[in-house]
Amino acid sequence: MAQLRIALAQTNPAVGDLTANADKLVEWTRRAADRGAHLAVFTEMFLTGYPVEDLVLRNSFVEASIAAVEAAARRLAEEGLGEIPVVVGYVDRADRAPRVGQPKGAPLDAAALLYRGQVVARTAKHHLPNYGVFDEYRYFVRGDRLPIFRLHGVDVAIAVCEDLWQDGGPVAVAAEAGAGLLVVPNASPYEREKDDVRLELVSRRAREAGCALAYANQVGGQDELVFDGDSIVVSASGELVARAARFTEELLVTDLDLPEATYGGLGSFEVDAGDGTVITVERLELSARPLEPYDPEPPSVAGHLDDTAEVYSALVLAVRDYVAKNGFRSVILGLSGGIDSALTATIASDAIGPDRVHVVLMPSRYSSDHSLGDAQELVDRQGVNARVVPIAAMVEAFEKELSLTGLSEENLQARVRGMILMGLSNEHGHLVLTTGNKSELATGYSTLYGDSAGGFAPIKDVLKTLVWELARWRNAQAGVESEFLHGFAVPPIPENSITKEPSAELRPGQRDTDSLPEYDVLDRLLDDYVEKDMGSASLVAAGHDPDLVARVIRLVDLAEYKRRQYPPGPKITPKNFGRDRRLPITNRWRETAP
Amino acid sequence: MAQLRIALAQTNPAVGDLTANADKLVEWTRRAADRGAHLAVFTEMFLTGYPVEDLVLRNSFVEASIAAVEAAARRLAEEGLGEIPVVVGYVDRADRAPRVGQPKGAPLDAAALLYRGQVVARTAKHHLPNYGVFDEYRYFVRGDRLPIFRLHGVDVAIAVCEDLWQDGGPVAVAAEAGAGLLVVPNASPYEREKDDVRLELVSRRAREAGCALAYANQVGGQDELVFDGDSIVVSASGELVARAARFTEELLVTDLDLPEATYGGLGSFEVDAGDGTVITVERLELSARPLEPYDPEPPSVAGHLDDTAEVYSALVLAVRDYVAKNGFRSVILGLSGGIDSALTATIASDAIGPDRVHVVLMPSRYSSDHSLGDAQELVDRQGVNARVVPIAAMVEAFEKELSLTGLSEENLQARVRGMILMGLSNEHGHLVLTTGNKSELATGYSTLYGDSAGGFAPIKDVLKTLVWELARWRNAQAGVESEFLHGFAVPPIPENSITKEPSAELRPGQRDTDSLPEYDVLDRLLDDYVEKDMGSASLVAAGHDPDLVARVIRLVDLAEYKRRQYPPGPKITPKNFGRDRRLPITNRWRETAP
Repeated sequence: MAQLRIALAQTNPAVGDLTANADKLVEWTRRAADRGAHLAVFTEMFLTGYPVEDLVLRNSFVEASIAAVEAAARRLAEEGLGEIPVVVGYVDRADRAPRVGQPKGAPLDAAALLYRGQVVARTAKHHLPNYGVFDEYRYFVRGDRLPIFRLHGVDVAIAVCEDLWQDGGPVAVAAEAGAGLLVVPNASPYEREKDDVRLELVSRRAREAGCALAYANQVGGQDELVFDGDSIVVSASGELVARAARFTEELLVTDLDLPEATYGGLGSFEVDAGDGTVITVERLELSARPLEPYDPEPPSVAGHLDDTAEVYSALVLAVRDYVAKNGFRSVILGLSGGIDSALTATIASDAIGPDRVHVVLMPSRYSSDHSLGDAQELVDRQGVNARVVPIAAMVEAFEKELSLTGLSEENLQARVRGMILMGLSNEHGHLVLTTGNKSELATGYSTLYGDSAGGFAPIKDVLKTLVWELARWRNAQAGVESEFLHGFAVPPIPENSITKEPSAELRPGQRDTDSLPEYDVLDRLLDDYVEKDMGSASLVAAGHDPDLVARVIRLVDLAEYKRRQYPPGPKITPKNFGRDRRLPITNRWRETAP
Repeated sequence: MAQLRIALAQTNPAVGDLTANADKLVEWTRRAADRGAHLAVFTEMFLTGYPVEDLVLRNSFVEASIAAVEAAARRLAEEGLGEIPVVVGYVDRADRAPRVGQPKGAPLDAAALLYRGQVVARTAKHHLPNYGVFDEYRYFVRGDRLPIFRLHGVDVAIAVCEDLWQDGGPVAVAAEAGAGLLVVPNASPYEREKDDVRLELVSRRAREAGCALAYANQVGGQDELVFDGDSIVVSASGELVARAARFTEELLVTDLDLPEATYGGLGSFEVDAGDGTVITVERLELSARPLEPYDPEPPSVAGHLDDTAEVYSALVLAVRDYVAKNGFRSVILGLSGGIDSALTATIASDAIGPDRVHVVLMPSRYSSDHSLGDAQELVDRQGVNARVVPIAAMVEAFEKELSLTGLSEENLQARVRGMILMGLSNEHGHLVLTTGNKSELATGYSTLYGDSAGGFAPIKDVLKTLVWELARWRNAQAGVESEFLHGFAVPPIPENSITKEPSAELRPGQRDTDSLPEYDVLDRLLDDYVEKDMGSASLVAAGHDPDLVARVIRLVDLAEYKRRQYPPGPKITPKNFGRDRRLPITNRWRETAP
């Protein structure tokens, strides 16, 4: 056997910031070297950030990425880090004649091996995901190489992200080529309970490849995506060896005992990839002889996060990164006394500290006494910045000019509030947080340019029943201080905001249940209709009330336009009404009752 | 030779309305039969409408489509139309085991041949477009069959849309199989001057296939896409035989002299498609003997539309269909006296008639006298419904509560106007038209939830210089009445709205050139940066001012969030800031000066 100490850099790049990402590459490679690592592995498209979407169709961007990876190799050597091989993702381009349907410039979701000042090997993702949030056939052409480099006597192969999720391709070829370790840069976004799937997958592919597997994943928020880290090292038999924490940067350093390479030749040869394609294996040698035996460090295995903690951490990280990466210093939101805005304010306080959170209490003639009181109590508990702006005078100014009634009048109030927040945002530079939840967004229970105004919507993918669960969970953490929890000594959310009956308070005595079913009934139905794409016959067969099925389907379908206008927010489920569910606005298809 | 009279149904389906589309199928087949046609060809996915986006991932939708095509075959026979073969597009599914990365249920962009009450042949698009507005790898799996049916002694092959645009595949196989006619259902959206490309393509593919080619295209507006018709018939040598009008429904009936089929066998055989795949040719016979010779009708060739007329027609059709297909009866917009809102109002009048157009004049303390006067003059010229709502009192109500200055105060005025329009829309059911142009949208020269509020933005893909050109063109058509022009006796747009200097009038003496360069300079730069994706070095090399390049790139990049929140509008260029240019919001990439 041969030993290797590998360092997986689970880091948070900034999309498009090639300079900052390159600085981070050097900094984390130094940390890996300081820990005595023999190999450092960064994440997918680390130098450019992921995903860069249509930027990749711009020639100048691809050129900049290619220049950046070459400059990074030189710089590592100049800074005395040339002896540690570094695997890092970036964007490259394939040398192919243009053709219809192939993205302009034939970009590659590439990974490079940097060593002694040079880019000594290049590869690119073979399997391109094109489902869910991924549109990679739009952006990339398929990679068709598998570099295997010998490092201290171990043959190390490189594959990229989706290559693990599909059958055939690089994993199969790595097995055939007898690799001793497969390293895989990833940018795999968070979804609830995905960590369980991920470990199972990584273990299975290690067994298929017949070698240990090191999976390095991105961490951080990027618009609607949250990358959760969870980098993993497994043995050739698929046993978990080491695992990084979730939602936080970590250098995962692991000592491995790996088989010593026996294959004699170098150079290239073609292998049937088992998926209808041919992959060229490229063998190169960095160092042939195994290291002298050394004492390994004990591997690090992060503890498990329960489902609620996991969701809450994802939301906090998403808000923190959206604020920082877009250059904001503070946020503002309307605080109604209800649970949605209370939870949003709390997430914001945990993300950037209550001193950078500004709330506006905007009572109307229909606001109940408890609303202002509950909102004020949250302000007192969290110490956020607060001001009160009653909306009556503004609403009356519109009413004097326009005769609005019923829903139009309700919308008017919501829009006056939206305008106040946007005005204060423009004047003071705060990011407006939108406080709507997924149950509202699904059914269109919101006002366009009113409560839906803003720059980021932290709970847009959180169903109402989960809003309450998160609020209770957060209050139960009172006294805990962590990377995701501000150290509030008391429960930060007023109990009454959690327990009282939900109301938009846009007319006297209004309750959500005037327009919507009870949330536990509604949310179960939304989950089946939206997440599972069940048709009406299946919904009824699953036990949902037929009238409710027809009514809710109609509400959801008609709200498509509103959802398109909604701000982005962190995705925690497969269908978050952002990138994951794209319906025509003009659409006459309705599920009919069976 | 053998004769055939073919009828191409260039029609306007409604997305998701399987019942209405099936009714239209019967109605147009009857019209084809009444004209003595021997074959009717409808457009791509005609029964479901195109594009249906994520609807296709819902099993119940695919099942409904398959049921609809079978019901349509039966109904045609019941209504005495069973003897005319009908080619029609719909959604089917492939019989394949699910796998990662393949859309759920393996949907097919299919076409069926209906005859004597049965679906006698099925095929599906082989080449799936996945660029520009198309995401078809997300939605469909590849078809791998080419049906060839013998009709009155002629072998007729069926391919679908993109199969014409890419090399190899069905066209190559049709040539090898010796087809006498290739019929192609399409849903090919409008772009400026695409008609020239299309005829050249159709001619080339006819020569490659070695047979006549009949290209039937969809017409009508569907959210951001406008389908322009332009159905074409060419001979085997690629000569134009017949051509339908643009932007309007038409049954294009054409008599063709075609080679009599000589191939003896029926049944299936596999052919190398020349693109790395294998296609199964399926031969069937409807009628073996050529028709008795008859006198052909002269072919119909629609006249050419010049570029300005073409754009204007596209915008009118887009507004008309968005209004109708979404169930609105009227529109409302703010009329400032400036050219953008004047042109938008005129397009609306041409689309649905001035009696269904409502305009609101919303003067502020900064409005110049000519603004109200020019707006009033448009009202008089067009006879649209108008009301005046001064905004001063509403603006003051906000100012009393909030201390807003500078840009915040300017935005406030724009938002008060947006709220007025939305309030009147909610109260009276009008669709709000947003009046911003592409130069504004590109540079972020608009107010979120202010002038960008609304449901549909007719000129969002029209650069300011083209706005002026369209206005002048439209005025020059005064007195003309057509499907796209209301018969205004006088030029509908006040001359002063066209000639005066553009201003947002949000502060005293404001002019667009305070913030932006002259529009002829800006628009040329935007075209190079946005449409051509040129980097800053290329832009400067092309003669653009280096400082302006840096400034405009920054403006364009920072406005991404605003553009995402903008209402949909008709696409007339490759990059319409809707489906065609998808950048991350959180993005630190900036083109740097060379």
